[in-house]
Amino acid sequence: MTLPTPGFSFRVDAVDGNARSGELQTPRARIETPAFMPVGTQATVKALTPEEVASTGARIILANTYHLWLRPGAESIAAHGGVVGFMNWPYALLTDSGGYQVFSLAKNRTIDDDGITFRSHIDGSLKRLTPEEAMRVQALLGSDIAMVLDECPPGGAPRPEVEGAMERTTAWAERCLQTKPADGQARFGIVQGGTELDLRLSHLETIAALDFDGVALGGFSVGEPPAQMYALLDRITPQMPKDRPRYLMGVGTPSDLLQALSSGVDLFDCVLPTRNARNGQALTWGGRVNLKQARHRDDESRLDEHCDCSVCAGYSRAYLRHLFKADEMLGPRLLSLHNLHFYAALMRKARAMIRLGELGPWVASTLSEMKERDEVGDPDT
Amino acid sequence: MTLPTPGFSFRVDAVDGNARSGELQTPRARIETPAFMPVGTQATVKALTPEEVASTGARIILANTYHLWLRPGAESIAAHGGVVGFMNWPYALLTDSGGYQVFSLAKNRTIDDDGITFRSHIDGSLKRLTPEEAMRVQALLGSDIAMVLDECPPGGAPRPEVEGAMERTTAWAERCLQTKPADGQARFGIVQGGTELDLRLSHLETIAALDFDGVALGGFSVGEPPAQMYALLDRITPQMPKDRPRYLMGVGTPSDLLQALSSGVDLFDCVLPTRNARNGQALTWGGRVNLKQARHRDDESRLDEHCDCSVCAGYSRAYLRHLFKADEMLGPRLLSLHNLHFYAALMRKARAMIRLGELGPWVASTLSEMKERDEVGDPDT
Repeated sequence: MTLPTPGFSFRVDAVDGNARSGELQTPRARIETPAFMPVGTQATVKALTPEEVASTGARIILANTYHLWLRPGAESIAAHGGVVGFMNWPYALLTDSGGYQVFSLAKNRTIDDDGITFRSHIDGSLKRLTPEEAMRVQALLGSDIAMVLDECPPGGAPRPEVEGAMERTTAWAERCLQTKPADGQARFGIVQGGTELDLRLSHLETIAALDFDGVALGGFSVGEPPAQMYALLDRITPQMPKDRPRYLMGVGTPSDLLQALSSGVDLFDCVLPTRNARNGQALTWGGRVNLKQARHRDDESRLDEHCDCSVCAGYSRAYLRHLFKADEMLGPRLLSLHNLHFYAALMRKARAMIRLGELGPWVASTLSEMKERDEVGDPDT
Repeated sequence: MTLPTPGFSFRVDAVDGNARSGELQTPRARIETPAFMPVGTQATVKALTPEEVASTGARIILANTYHLWLRPGAESIAAHGGVVGFMNWPYALLTDSGGYQVFSLAKNRTIDDDGITFRSHIDGSLKRLTPEEAMRVQALLGSDIAMVLDECPPGGAPRPEVEGAMERTTAWAERCLQTKPADGQARFGIVQGGTELDLRLSHLETIAALDFDGVALGGFSVGEPPAQMYALLDRITPQMPKDRPRYLMGVGTPSDLLQALSSGVDLFDCVLPTRNARNGQALTWGGRVNLKQARHRDDESRLDEHCDCSVCAGYSRAYLRHLFKADEMLGPRLLSLHNLHFYAALMRKARAMIRLGELGPWVASTLSEMKERDEVGDPDT
């Protein structure tokens, strides 16, 4: 099915309960869904080359508008043919609006109905982000998919504050749609509403009525218990448009992904696999492995016996642990590669299970297997 | 020509002035000489995978006995089939004796005629390094080439101290040779003598008379002016055995390598290409490029127009600069790969020029080209 923006289409090929498996086509890539998007905040997926990211199976990554706008600057990136030319990434790209980072990183921010004024966390310079500016910057960054500017209230915000953020997000979404779209760039709307089901469903109805190419859920995984998020997703996601991609922003752990795609989510992004890698934590079919723990000191076995990545094929747990103990850059690098391989394999397997109509039992057994051997203890060197 | 240790041979194929081009065969690799050995101090060439190091053309790397002996421990590495099994390096390996690092890194070291007592810089534990222990540890590390324990006097040491270090180095060399050799492991002797030509030539005569598979020059590049080192090498290297490989330890810059191989050196190692890479400095056919300098901010050109490595093919100077300004790991990683590619290409070209009998003019024009565009200024952000 074609989407509003030329060059984009979305197709659901199989349904299993609320879960669906399909394909999102952008001008630059064909993306099998459900899909995980690795995060390349500053026009680099930390520690990895684009070739390595692509080798995991990823065909779309995310870059952060806030960071790239401030450094090196959107015009400088546009001169390189956008983020994909700048960083030499050969497939599709999604950019966020910059709003989330303005709230979490910038200094002295003040928000009004027109936009947000803040100081750069890098050089203290005064900046102004509006819905129109967010679209202008993302056009320069040249992403396949641009996100509208939204207001994400903090976790646990009182209901009136959540309602205010919803209203502002709606007004900003309409203003984003009134800007002239960049060639070959789709736009996704964002649903807010905190942890209140009625607010979520009401805001979803509003956003779904607008002419976006996809609909995203923002403001999840901001401190609420995972079980609460899963319960909300089970009620909200099935109400999202069936003919457009559904994107759950900034989520999450392997469990989060399996639960959310079971509710019908198509797209995910999260820094977790690469951030945890840099801290020595591998994500595997047998749960989390903390390589800094002493138990791995003389362990000649591979990281994950069920993984076919080059890290699991080439190195022992003892060697990977040595790299972290010796503070060697190759440690974060190899673990980032493995973790993204694992996330991609998890999505690949989920897609296959949806097509087979066996998603539910597979999710249950996979989560149980991970939980059983999960290394939750602290590193004990 | 076979060397004393079974499985090793060395052949000189071409001579041009004092320079020579040839081939060193070890049980694990065939190494074309002159050759540069990338340094993998802690069983990893910093930031790079073994596949990447091999892709530069390197067929032998160096690992540091001191570091690996202290962490993770030689026995742990031996259980993995030595350093090459531990780090998954498929070619040849040279290990140093550990002596140099004991002098530069360890605490509370005391030296006597039998060996050196010191405290680990990692955990403060008391350790004892003797010629016999250096050979035992290197046997466990399983290198193709082990270096004898030597005493390297500090740069500018007075003549009696240099003579004392020479005598001790000779006695330790003889003790190393009396240990039972490890299977498939060659042993190289080390010539000391500071910057005094008569001492160097006298010690060379002593070490060359022993039954080593190769002869190394230690104690260079420890603070003396490069011109003084070049002048000494021009007098010393031609007196080294012609039928065995000649190794100049811990040297150096691209200029150092070209000058020293013109004197007849066959093997080099140095942390410079990888260390400078981590500081944002690229080594190119056009001299040093300091990517932190503001002049590269909007430079869409490649790092080195004469280089065929994947970094020069895939990324602009502006992007590489961005990675360093944004403190992204990919910056040190890509520059390390480029710098090792450049060092390998420099050696490859030198070998070709020796075979053509055109080394002298090529070295002169290459050094002049590098000097002309060298970015010597400080980073100005």
